[in-house]
Amino acid sequence: MKRRDLIKGIGGGLAVAGLSACSGADPSGAAKKSAEAETHKWTMVTTWPKNFPGVGIGAERIARLITQNSGGRITVQVYAAGELVPAMEVMTAVSEGSAQLGHGASYYWKGKAPAAQFFAAVPFGMNAQEMNAWLYYGGGIELWREVYAPFGVLPHPGGNTGTQMGGWFNKEINSLEDLKGLKMRIPGLGGEILKRAGGIPVLLPGGEIFTALQTGTIDATEWIGPYNDLAFGLHQAAKFYYYPGWHEPGTVLECMVNKAAFEALPADLQGIVDSVISQVNSEMLAEYTARNAEALATLETEHGIVPRAFPNEVLKRLKELSVGVIADTIAADPLSAKVYESFSAFQKHVAAYHDVSERAFYKTRDL
Amino acid sequence: MKRRDLIKGIGGGLAVAGLSACSGADPSGAAKKSAEAETHKWTMVTTWPKNFPGVGIGAERIARLITQNSGGRITVQVYAAGELVPAMEVMTAVSEGSAQLGHGASYYWKGKAPAAQFFAAVPFGMNAQEMNAWLYYGGGIELWREVYAPFGVLPHPGGNTGTQMGGWFNKEINSLEDLKGLKMRIPGLGGEILKRAGGIPVLLPGGEIFTALQTGTIDATEWIGPYNDLAFGLHQAAKFYYYPGWHEPGTVLECMVNKAAFEALPADLQGIVDSVISQVNSEMLAEYTARNAEALATLETEHGIVPRAFPNEVLKRLKELSVGVIADTIAADPLSAKVYESFSAFQKHVAAYHDVSERAFYKTRDL
Repeated sequence: MKRRDLIKGIGGGLAVAGLSACSGADPSGAAKKSAEAETHKWTMVTTWPKNFPGVGIGAERIARLITQNSGGRITVQVYAAGELVPAMEVMTAVSEGSAQLGHGASYYWKGKAPAAQFFAAVPFGMNAQEMNAWLYYGGGIELWREVYAPFGVLPHPGGNTGTQMGGWFNKEINSLEDLKGLKMRIPGLGGEILKRAGGIPVLLPGGEIFTALQTGTIDATEWIGPYNDLAFGLHQAAKFYYYPGWHEPGTVLECMVNKAAFEALPADLQGIVDSVISQVNSEMLAEYTARNAEALATLETEHGIVPRAFPNEVLKRLKELSVGVIADTIAADPLSAKVYESFSAFQKHVAAYHDVSERAFYKTRDL
Repeated sequence: MKRRDLIKGIGGGLAVAGLSACSGADPSGAAKKSAEAETHKWTMVTTWPKNFPGVGIGAERIARLITQNSGGRITVQVYAAGELVPAMEVMTAVSEGSAQLGHGASYYWKGKAPAAQFFAAVPFGMNAQEMNAWLYYGGGIELWREVYAPFGVLPHPGGNTGTQMGGWFNKEINSLEDLKGLKMRIPGLGGEILKRAGGIPVLLPGGEIFTALQTGTIDATEWIGPYNDLAFGLHQAAKFYYYPGWHEPGTVLECMVNKAAFEALPADLQGIVDSVISQVNSEMLAEYTARNAEALATLETEHGIVPRAFPNEVLKRLKELSVGVIADTIAADPLSAKVYESFSAFQKHVAAYHDVSERAFYKTRDL
């Protein structure tokens, strides 16, 4: 499955303009450096539909800001899913160098690298603030780079949805019995957990969810959160909206950079690329937080949707089952075991700290 | 108190190198633009001691990344508190243009602009994720700019500590009675609330806290969180460590930019400055989250500190008192009223959304 030695072209259409003859007239070393007249025509491929709110717009923003901040020394052309390559070929395109940038979510690549999914969403795992802490300051990014090294791809956290919702159901979920035989669109580790609880996980791309739910092909679906769910009109296809998103507590999106293309850049352009991706990683979470809050209010006041909590009995059982699903995943792949060891050690400490800080504050605010 | 028309010098030592004679040899418009040989010598002043972990190191990182990403077209020299101007003169220096960048926290400037404190920390207000959502996508930054407009200063979120701890106390806090006569280092709105609860708020710079607490000059202090508290050795001066930080649920640090200096930059350098500040805003929170978690574990296992929750009775009363303190603040200043209207409307929706997402997930993880 792995595609080594496939770096076809780096840096896209690299043009070097002959300014060096002028350097003698340049009194400033700094100016001389910035006068490097290389321009890099980069391509970004994404796993998202065109102009898709939140994740898709965020990817396009990375491209626009790189072009702006580099003064056009890097130009980035963005292709939505299917325009240049299908969504599920995005990582391959970045690995081969036919695209220099790719935007998606790392659990899409578990077929190539099972450990990849621990960098996106782990059921009952860490939320957005905790994932960023682990990735940037807990060794997470270093491990992610190790997992992607065979592909010549540099991974970055490239956005976050925050804690997702549990999903839309065409019936109430009052007990574990209600999960038996339930056909639900839910991918990844969450889907495997549902299966062990007696449900039937179904894989469907976003664009097919509404019709499948409305026609009864599926009984339930998770998607992202109120902002994207409202835009899809899921409240018109099922009326029971459950929380929380136990399966995706703070999904990390990713921005992939072709390693050879990145290493061909001078230090200032490398810094610009890194900074812009980190900026969008954070600001996308801010956008989701603001837009989800607005959209939830709209669902409640205009559409009469009252979010329901999953019963504790159901959540407890799903959590027990998650232990087995993760154990099986790490037993089958040593790199997954290495990544999860770091992940779970970090989660233990950060959860204890958040019990006396973020979580305790939420409670205090409600007193 | 306001200092208008005091912009003395913009762009620091601005040097324009004569590369224009070469532009005829430049085949690329993009290259020509990036070849602009202006270099900008910028100064950053901060409210932090030199090399101060977390906030101070974060400020220095903004400076370093701007220099790196601009390829040296902007160089930034950083001065810690007291090196060029005292901590409490940082905003004035940026306003006057003697520094192009300043790093601190907006509640330090409430004497100049009372509304400024709503952009840093509001007791029983919003946490880091919520503040970022309000600032970037809820109209917060636009209001902040309005508040700072008379000073010629552009404010940016420039870091976040996350939910702080409640502080170190030399006795147990079992009831409201225990706050009566309590001398506690606690600034801002939190200090005013403590005062109304019968306590005695004391203002002390960070460097004097340890000695004051150890010698009994004060009975209690809040500082930041386990990472900075451990570094100060506060556990050696008082043994009761309370949570949560009801007074600072997610303190926003700020990076100020002199408006005229910023507007003198070409678009690419403006973008670089904005991106780097946003990057550090987010990554500082990640750093605090990781380091606070480690430091809390160290305090517990190596120093026998067991964090204690404030009694609900105490928190409830402090929350009631906070309503009056905020009401008085906004009654005295129309701009504060305008800012708080936006803040509190946003908080209402985002708290409702976080009840079914982030907060509900914390509970689920513990089942």
